[in-house]
Amino acid sequence: MKFISFQINGRASYGLARGNGIVDLGTRLAGFAPTLKALIATGRMQQLASPHADAVADFQRADVDLLPPIPQPSVIACVGHNYEEHRLETQRDPTEHPSIFFRFPESLQASGAPLIRPRESTQLDYEGELAVIIGKGGRRIAEVDAWDHVAGLSCFNDGSVRDWQHHTRQFGPGKNFAHTAGFGPCLVTPDELPDDRVVELWTRVNGKVVQHATTDQMIFPIPRLIAYVSSFMTLSPGDVIVSGTPGGVGVKRTPQLWLEPGDVVEVEISSVGLLSNPVLHEESATVASPRSDAQLAERRPLS
Amino acid sequence: MKFISFQINGRASYGLARGNGIVDLGTRLAGFAPTLKALIATGRMQQLASPHADAVADFQRADVDLLPPIPQPSVIACVGHNYEEHRLETQRDPTEHPSIFFRFPESLQASGAPLIRPRESTQLDYEGELAVIIGKGGRRIAEVDAWDHVAGLSCFNDGSVRDWQHHTRQFGPGKNFAHTAGFGPCLVTPDELPDDRVVELWTRVNGKVVQHATTDQMIFPIPRLIAYVSSFMTLSPGDVIVSGTPGGVGVKRTPQLWLEPGDVVEVEISSVGLLSNPVLHEESATVASPRSDAQLAERRPLS
Repeated sequence: MKFISFQINGRASYGLARGNGIVDLGTRLAGFAPTLKALIATGRMQQLASPHADAVADFQRADVDLLPPIPQPSVIACVGHNYEEHRLETQRDPTEHPSIFFRFPESLQASGAPLIRPRESTQLDYEGELAVIIGKGGRRIAEVDAWDHVAGLSCFNDGSVRDWQHHTRQFGPGKNFAHTAGFGPCLVTPDELPDDRVVELWTRVNGKVVQHATTDQMIFPIPRLIAYVSSFMTLSPGDVIVSGTPGGVGVKRTPQLWLEPGDVVEVEISSVGLLSNPVLHEESATVASPRSDAQLAERRPLS
Repeated sequence: MKFISFQINGRASYGLARGNGIVDLGTRLAGFAPTLKALIATGRMQQLASPHADAVADFQRADVDLLPPIPQPSVIACVGHNYEEHRLETQRDPTEHPSIFFRFPESLQASGAPLIRPRESTQLDYEGELAVIIGKGGRRIAEVDAWDHVAGLSCFNDGSVRDWQHHTRQFGPGKNFAHTAGFGPCLVTPDELPDDRVVELWTRVNGKVVQHATTDQMIFPIPRLIAYVSSFMTLSPGDVIVSGTPGGVGVKRTPQLWLEPGDVVEVEISSVGLLSNPVLHEESATVASPRSDAQLAERRPLS
């Protein structure tokens, strides 16, 4: 099944995605769960949804504004250097454990909506990744049980403001500017994957493939990531583990390839979906401020 | 004024701390704000509290279980290497910007309650720090305005599981084990500080001073930290910036000094308060599990 979160006429909801149609579950399951995260937390996501699987679609995707599948995860744990090609291009030594950093929900953006290049930087970069959305929470989840804790998968673009990411060794500042990460369009349940759960990932900028990998190339496979993260923190329904990006990021190309306003960046993952985001610079994305540019400039703490 | 969060008879509340007495504001201001974070978010924390400043205390501190002043901050941004002595002992190069990593609320513990040494490690270390609790939120807060965005200060022990902190360059795993950070006892409003806002900090293990500094020794002062963090993410009422630890951490001592079950670790900050936590190992802190040790051992993903 494919689940989708969306907004229509100012009302946030979620539903089943069927082709271009959406069956609104936010209304049908209002008594059980107001959000997809809440539906996951019931532990009966698919059971509660399945009676509505054949309902007539309430909306077409074009009618609604998509939201990230989980708009407000409690934890978004991202994995660095989890494909050998990317580890080599970033000249990192191998490590025994995955490298984990965190994003916050403000940094997310739905499929179709713009990634925002902040005024502080011109170094906005893409990172196509497979996102894992936790179903059943837990602490110290064993690798062998890990897939039982997965509600679904989605596409993710771990958009990175590279100069800010490298202000120090800690990646957080470059990973948390508002609306720099694409997430979506759908949560796809694991039974939609091939039996070996290996999927193929492409990142494209303006149609040109810039990253391509299969997920069996991960240094730390998904069960290991779930086991590791849950060994030091409790995972809850709707938490997201973003499993790392393959080689080919813009910062390591010659010449470097930065996302520019007007670009379109896509992350496509077989069986999972297609995440597509245009890029805007911040000034064109926000409503014009009544303050003058001079006043805004005064308020820039680091310019 | 000093604000405190607590629990009594299973009810979570908050109030004014006066010596050992507590005036319960959770009941008195129930119509305005169910939590201290909600009170801060009204923008009128002190105005709403002041009519009750002289009320007879409802409880003594010994009657209640303290909670961290803000039990569930949306963001806990911690600063690494912000005192020269600590930067040198950890052999870090100077950086132009503060080093920022994140904790999550599960890792917090109230004053008086035990810090938990997890079963995965014997390398639990202390880091005495001044915590800044955000009042008025904002993005791109100018340094000159930063103190207007501070609701109050508190003591913080940025407890660190050192081997896990250094699995990779990203600090998060060593900073997020459950109940490894002390936070409290009170939120102290900035008007309680000296005019120059410089306070003195001591960390003690079993009564012996192991860290001592004054906050004018910070490499990046508090206004700079607020400006920097708010340049890449929006700060909200109740968010916490933990301003970094001075020299003297256990991992860099000869011989190394690890927190052991039975130790008591204190962080005292002049004008701000005294945070005191005993240390327990995890098995003695949790209710006995019906599962056998052998079953638990099987569930350890990394042992």
